[in-house]
Amino acid sequence: MDIHPLDAALDLQALGGDRRLGRTRPDWANMVGPFGGITAAQLLHAAWIDPRRLGEPVALTVNYAGPVAEEEFEIEALPLRTNRSTQHWSMTLRQGGAVCTSATAVFALRRPTWAAPELAMPAVPPAADVPAETRRPPVAWPARYEFRFVAGGWPDFRRPQELPESRSLLWVRDEPPRALDFQSLAAIADIFYPRVFRRRQRAVPAGTVTLTTYFHADAAALAAQGARPLLAVAQGRRFNQGFFDQSAELWSDDGHLLASSHQLVYYKE
Amino acid sequence: MDIHPLDAALDLQALGGDRRLGRTRPDWANMVGPFGGITAAQLLHAAWIDPRRLGEPVALTVNYAGPVAEEEFEIEALPLRTNRSTQHWSMTLRQGGAVCTSATAVFALRRPTWAAPELAMPAVPPAADVPAETRRPPVAWPARYEFRFVAGGWPDFRRPQELPESRSLLWVRDEPPRALDFQSLAAIADIFYPRVFRRRQRAVPAGTVTLTTYFHADAAALAAQGARPLLAVAQGRRFNQGFFDQSAELWSDDGHLLASSHQLVYYKE
Repeated sequence: MDIHPLDAALDLQALGGDRRLGRTRPDWANMVGPFGGITAAQLLHAAWIDPRRLGEPVALTVNYAGPVAEEEFEIEALPLRTNRSTQHWSMTLRQGGAVCTSATAVFALRRPTWAAPELAMPAVPPAADVPAETRRPPVAWPARYEFRFVAGGWPDFRRPQELPESRSLLWVRDEPPRALDFQSLAAIADIFYPRVFRRRQRAVPAGTVTLTTYFHADAAALAAQGARPLLAVAQGRRFNQGFFDQSAELWSDDGHLLASSHQLVYYKE
Repeated sequence: MDIHPLDAALDLQALGGDRRLGRTRPDWANMVGPFGGITAAQLLHAAWIDPRRLGEPVALTVNYAGPVAEEEFEIEALPLRTNRSTQHWSMTLRQGGAVCTSATAVFALRRPTWAAPELAMPAVPPAADVPAETRRPPVAWPARYEFRFVAGGWPDFRRPQELPESRSLLWVRDEPPRALDFQSLAAIADIFYPRVFRRRQRAVPAGTVTLTTYFHADAAALAAQGARPLLAVAQGRRFNQGFFDQSAELWSDDGHLLASSHQLVYYKE
């Protein structure tokens, strides 16, 4: 059986010390360089496969400092501090010695506590009742996902107009299907196209500057979700002087919030 | 005139190279170590005063890796990458060589673009019509702020009960008043007590693990706000297995979103 495109992208080779070698994959390409979500997954994975790792990720921040070229890259993953139940990591992706991406992550041993939801899952039809979107933007990475838009689908750049809000609501899963884990969840957190495209129904230069994802579930809960679609929601807050933020929630199909994710996006014009 | 407590805390001395010396201040103390907001402000300030800085902060992530003891600390601030209009920083706070706090920041040259709000400011009475809270928790840092709670005030630990939601809505400013800047805004982003205290009206061990703040306004807009109270809102999303997230918005009194902020918080029991 062929290796899944996500697992192919996560193939990092030990270089000794804290360094590992990876390479970009054409099937994850975005407009310029790779899809930010796959870079986030690769950085998280470098800490995940480190024998010094404690527990499971609870938070990941990825800073997109410069473009990643289509070639090999090196990830340095450093455990900055290990406590009894938490561990803080720094990960840096470099090409030719230059920092392309910096990241931090918090890992933790989760344990049973008082627990409660607060945000409610949006009411939507089940994934099977929402048609899969057949159109995709003219870059490679969207073909790595199945999108079933309930609202806020791909923008229509042939009809520029200003919309009053930027929300997208959709069912999404890896294509081909793949059992959910922290790496795929970290990537899915970045599948929302820049909210400025939705507000303006226009393509303007835009790119994620920094992305933070909080994981609200343990590995067992992610495994229980399996390869079934997640419910995904994203919306922006304010667009001003070249930057806007957008926040996203990713839900299991039985109504648990698996991750919340926030990003700041650069835009031009 | 006495130096403002925030400016006293921001007094960092150059140690040469990328390092600066700071010290904790008893008037910013929290239960264990300093208020997380003042540490965030100090880390941001280390990049702010660096002669290599480009532009103004647009994003700041602070990871609270271990307690900061009441003594001197060292901040190392490194520009990881400088582009034409953005600059990525890494800041690390150490005591005795051990990492206590790690941080990353993105600075940028803002420029005029298409702009639009999306999230609407909550409808509230003006700050002058909301009484200032006279009670404060038995730690030092809350005395550095004036709190005017519209909803979700200090929890009442004498009457433990489960509330269905964790929202707080309040007017807040530095005490004594101080003109707003990025440093004070970074600190104010952390003034919300752990949302688990509100949901349970019970004190349980809890502490911020990581905090990310996006700045939506430039220095001129912050200066225009001056020392007048900001409208502040915070709410949690999911409490599970020892961690929850809470998101906050900070608004100018004329209705502009100045910052959005997100944190993951550890809790016990």
